[in-house]
Amino acid sequence: MAFREVDDLRQEINGHLRTFLSHHSMKLLEISPALEKVGVGLSEFILSSGKRLRPLFAYAGFVAAGAEPGESELRAMASLELLQACALIHDDVMDRSDTRRGKPSIHKIFEQTHVKEKFSGSAELYGEASAILIGDLALVWSDLMLHSSKIDTARLLSAIPVHDEMRVELMAGQFLDVHEQGQRDWSAERALKIARFKSGKYTIERPLHFGAALANGSADLMSALSAFGLPLGEAFQLRDDLLGVFGDPEVTGKPAGDDLREGKRTVLIAFVDEALSPQQRENFYRLFGRSELTFDEVEELRSIISASGANTRIEELIAHLTSQSLSALEADAISSAAAEFMRPLVQMATRRSA
Amino acid sequence: MAFREVDDLRQEINGHLRTFLSHHSMKLLEISPALEKVGVGLSEFILSSGKRLRPLFAYAGFVAAGAEPGESELRAMASLELLQACALIHDDVMDRSDTRRGKPSIHKIFEQTHVKEKFSGSAELYGEASAILIGDLALVWSDLMLHSSKIDTARLLSAIPVHDEMRVELMAGQFLDVHEQGQRDWSAERALKIARFKSGKYTIERPLHFGAALANGSADLMSALSAFGLPLGEAFQLRDDLLGVFGDPEVTGKPAGDDLREGKRTVLIAFVDEALSPQQRENFYRLFGRSELTFDEVEELRSIISASGANTRIEELIAHLTSQSLSALEADAISSAAAEFMRPLVQMATRRSA
Repeated sequence: MAFREVDDLRQEINGHLRTFLSHHSMKLLEISPALEKVGVGLSEFILSSGKRLRPLFAYAGFVAAGAEPGESELRAMASLELLQACALIHDDVMDRSDTRRGKPSIHKIFEQTHVKEKFSGSAELYGEASAILIGDLALVWSDLMLHSSKIDTARLLSAIPVHDEMRVELMAGQFLDVHEQGQRDWSAERALKIARFKSGKYTIERPLHFGAALANGSADLMSALSAFGLPLGEAFQLRDDLLGVFGDPEVTGKPAGDDLREGKRTVLIAFVDEALSPQQRENFYRLFGRSELTFDEVEELRSIISASGANTRIEELIAHLTSQSLSALEADAISSAAAEFMRPLVQMATRRSA
Repeated sequence: MAFREVDDLRQEINGHLRTFLSHHSMKLLEISPALEKVGVGLSEFILSSGKRLRPLFAYAGFVAAGAEPGESELRAMASLELLQACALIHDDVMDRSDTRRGKPSIHKIFEQTHVKEKFSGSAELYGEASAILIGDLALVWSDLMLHSSKIDTARLLSAIPVHDEMRVELMAGQFLDVHEQGQRDWSAERALKIARFKSGKYTIERPLHFGAALANGSADLMSALSAFGLPLGEAFQLRDDLLGVFGDPEVTGKPAGDDLREGKRTVLIAFVDEALSPQQRENFYRLFGRSELTFDEVEELRSIISASGANTRIEELIAHLTSQSLSALEADAISSAAAEFMRPLVQMATRRSA
């Protein structure tokens, strides 16, 4: 069986998203012209970029069950991008992160509108409230897109429990992440657990299961997909940790060293913390988490991290998890044609060059 | 046919909510003990009070279709309280409202935990992020409670489109409300439209439709329920406007004159604005919207409002909408037994003493 190419798939997914967003943005206008910016803001946020990782993994889960999805099934998979939009928009509010994918984040866009149009009251609160509600709307729209995808009832009913579980795990993982930022001690173990929920499960394992459930995949297939998806998801998150410190703003869409300014408690930094000498520790925590780091200070933190060997440890862990994930593709439950489709996704999730 | 009594219904609804919340709070603990406060916070928020208006209207819609719901259907209806919890929790974050139902709001509870347990970072941001995520979780859980209610597939598939529409309208109405607070000119017309979406549709019409859809109600019934529910919902919101200014904190669970401190742009205040003399206007806007109003200043604003005749106008409008709503109960599509159940709900929604 010949599956679609990743680039073609992305085009199709984008097409379905574009159609949905334009139709439902129009419906908002029927309620009130004041909702125009809501539809435009959310549509641009979603359509301007994004790798469509979750729909691609859902596609992988579907084809692993031995079937080729039609238009309706692809629409159902594309709905995961709206869920992800909710997560990102709320994340940016919670982190007070002003940039997303190289552009102002949603709360910043609405804050700027408030200033430009000389509204009354606090521009900051207006931006924040708008982003909370647009995130909520994205969550509701993701459900609506799934429900109105025209997949047949059996597929929908089979996918709903996985979909609900995925969304609970997403919110749980997000909370654990927020909670971790408030802790005073470091724990690589806790950070790895968060990586498992936020990325292992939500980004990879559950989208695979969601796709497989749409295709009524067997319990054996579900286990095989977990064995493939969980280590890959952790590797994905560890790569994200490295990009948050060493990444090129062109690739990440965030300012250089963003996680360092934010003081983000990642597995990488937990490894750094374990390895520091008392002198290095003092230098490190003098700068780490300060919102106004200069370029030189970011460089200083980076060199402490490199000298600690933590990034090498993370690279080794990524390599280990990646090979675990690739071996899981040998499972009987996954056809060799499906495995062939899935192998480049491993590359994509752990290298993040695409 | 003899329908359940409102008080018995509330007990049953609360029982279903308690069972769901306790089961799923336990499941969160399996992910991490750090999620204990999430389950506890959300459960207490929902179970400690609330009139269960939306499930009651869903029940009304169901019995209007001529059927008596079983346990599964009541569970499906009870799920609306979780959706409402999302709306309230996010609302309190957006308004920076520290009290809800006479207790600290969710973001305040988590802010206090941060302080008490000496977490690192900003307690305020931690409280806010926690509340955003707990609101998101409530939205996901409401869906999960509906999906796992054990109603049969035909009922679920019939209710899903109404449910999605209701949730889109909720978010749209909330956005229009936030947006309105930023406008510099007053418009009773715009404020009425917001009342229509936030309360007319979301609180009353859509829950009625949701219940009727669960019972596979006819198109005629849906229209009759709109004719009943829309004016009632507007009347409900107008009563809320009055309570926000004149209400007893014992009844509202909010500090006296809360809407005056917040400077909330309600239909009531739009009517006040239309009626003020230049001298009154100066006195009014000198105080209106100031967060630190003394008791005497609240009293001063109240007497300007009373003197303007705006509250009498609102009472007249409530009376007019209420009688419109009661007349709609005469429709052929609504049985006289169902109408008998629905009449006290009108009282409850527009008097708000219960």
